[in-house]
Amino acid sequence: MKFENFTIEATASAVPKRVVTNDQLAQIMETSDEWIVQRTGIHQRHISTDETTTQLCTQVAQTLLAKANLTADDLDYIVVATMSPDTLTPSVSAGVQGNLGAQHAAAFDLNAACSGFVYGLSVVRQLLIGDRQKHALLIGGEVLSRLIDWQDRSTAVLFGDGAAGVLLSSAPAAEGAWISEDLRTFGDLGDHLTAGQLPSHDPFTGQTSASQPYFQMNGRQIYSFAVKQIPQSIERAVTQSHLIVNDINHFVLHQANQRIIQAVANKMAVESALFPVNIGEMGNTAAASEPLLLDQLVTDGTIQRGDLLALTGFGGGLTVGTVLLRY
Amino acid sequence: MKFENFTIEATASAVPKRVVTNDQLAQIMETSDEWIVQRTGIHQRHISTDETTTQLCTQVAQTLLAKANLTADDLDYIVVATMSPDTLTPSVSAGVQGNLGAQHAAAFDLNAACSGFVYGLSVVRQLLIGDRQKHALLIGGEVLSRLIDWQDRSTAVLFGDGAAGVLLSSAPAAEGAWISEDLRTFGDLGDHLTAGQLPSHDPFTGQTSASQPYFQMNGRQIYSFAVKQIPQSIERAVTQSHLIVNDINHFVLHQANQRIIQAVANKMAVESALFPVNIGEMGNTAAASEPLLLDQLVTDGTIQRGDLLALTGFGGGLTVGTVLLRY
Repeated sequence: MKFENFTIEATASAVPKRVVTNDQLAQIMETSDEWIVQRTGIHQRHISTDETTTQLCTQVAQTLLAKANLTADDLDYIVVATMSPDTLTPSVSAGVQGNLGAQHAAAFDLNAACSGFVYGLSVVRQLLIGDRQKHALLIGGEVLSRLIDWQDRSTAVLFGDGAAGVLLSSAPAAEGAWISEDLRTFGDLGDHLTAGQLPSHDPFTGQTSASQPYFQMNGRQIYSFAVKQIPQSIERAVTQSHLIVNDINHFVLHQANQRIIQAVANKMAVESALFPVNIGEMGNTAAASEPLLLDQLVTDGTIQRGDLLALTGFGGGLTVGTVLLRY
Repeated sequence: MKFENFTIEATASAVPKRVVTNDQLAQIMETSDEWIVQRTGIHQRHISTDETTTQLCTQVAQTLLAKANLTADDLDYIVVATMSPDTLTPSVSAGVQGNLGAQHAAAFDLNAACSGFVYGLSVVRQLLIGDRQKHALLIGGEVLSRLIDWQDRSTAVLFGDGAAGVLLSSAPAAEGAWISEDLRTFGDLGDHLTAGQLPSHDPFTGQTSASQPYFQMNGRQIYSFAVKQIPQSIERAVTQSHLIVNDINHFVLHQANQRIIQAVANKMAVESALFPVNIGEMGNTAAASEPLLLDQLVTDGTIQRGDLLALTGFGGGLTVGTVLLRY
């Protein structure tokens, strides 16, 4: 049998124990609950105390295997989408592979920032195509708090930590979830959102380059980019299918800012109720944000088997990406 | 037409201008040319002055397009395998995409450390499968010198900077280069080779975690791992094909240490001449090492069209991977 499609067998998530409210942020920087809620829709976020990206992703992986009734030996791939790996080597995915003891799984990290989960879906879908059924974990995991400048109230209030993912299995062409995709990168706009610059010291010249490890964001530019590119990306994905925008049951967008999501809904003339949000509780968790929302909606019964989903990520790169699939 | 294979249309490389010899290293640390050559086979390496990973990769990308007589608009994917990105966002690949103006190319970074190029070949091959011809850049790019502790003579002498890659195009099933692959990850051994740990500061507790940004390596363990796993990985890839090890014309191994390569050749009872090396001039350049060697061998005519290549990467993760292909 030829497998040209996939099914989402399970969803799962894991967040750090500690919750930080806007009021708690207001105690360490010049901000307020009202200011943050008005501009972003964020009420609280999870911030790691000692949970690492690898630990959170491992927890997600273990839950995914249990829910799907599979063992670590069944896995062919473990892909972690992240822009906040614990180390540059080993990768987060290798750590997860080791923690699971998934001896047949090839593991690598993928970085397309906040679009990482959608880019990852596109990549893993292709990896699952073949002559036998394969299984993969795709997890978005971030401890973005390591990249936060706690002196910069314009960015520090935005981000949160967490991990979530899906267990994907190959499916025959006739079945399965995949419909279409649209991935775009706009590297010329990359300077509008930066983080994680490595320091550099040259022992031969004695020169040391200043580095900027923390988030730097041109919020206005990101807002414009998102409100323009998200509808276009969804439109392009829809155009490749035999469906129309009105067929979509849930628009699972990257949770960067509630005002972006509202503006996209308005622009597309789609009722806001079809754009679920959890940014209020989670903040912006980059590559983890869409699977966190997906898992929540699947768990609470909002998303049902057969529903048509548009998953759209956008952010650092800059990047945008949409995957249209049937859950 | 169904495209289920690929061709390597072009190879290219770019290295920093500055060459650092062993004697120059001996001026800033307790080491000697003799000590380094005996233990590693390395005589010199390129060390970036101000060249970034993105700049080196962009140079490679531009050469690849020129050699393949394609334009930036022809590209569907730009994938950069790296463990030393300039920033965690934007990704190196997004920077390359922006510099080229490759408007149809989706860009992401892939991290499987020193196995990144081989893992990338496996991933990009799957991305190129489809109903139309697609084109992708796969580039391994590293400025590892940013991750070097210049006080640690056991690791500082090993690494170098550089970038190299291939332009891959979809090909009909009957043609093309792809034969078989083997990818394995051993996350339980990940602690033997680490680098690039992010620092962390908790503004709510005041706690600051010590971080280790630099390479830490258990050389003996890595040596044992490599000498055991490389022959097994090649063997597994060969077993999936209709070929035998003796059919392989060139074993293009990750260049980590000349003694590893020699030990692998001995263990496999294959003459050393089939294991080309350039570690003497380049040092260990992680994900860039195999494409740097590949480009050199193609350029000097050692590798000819039709030759059977085994490309094997190994290292951080720990990871190992082999791709068997016909050039």
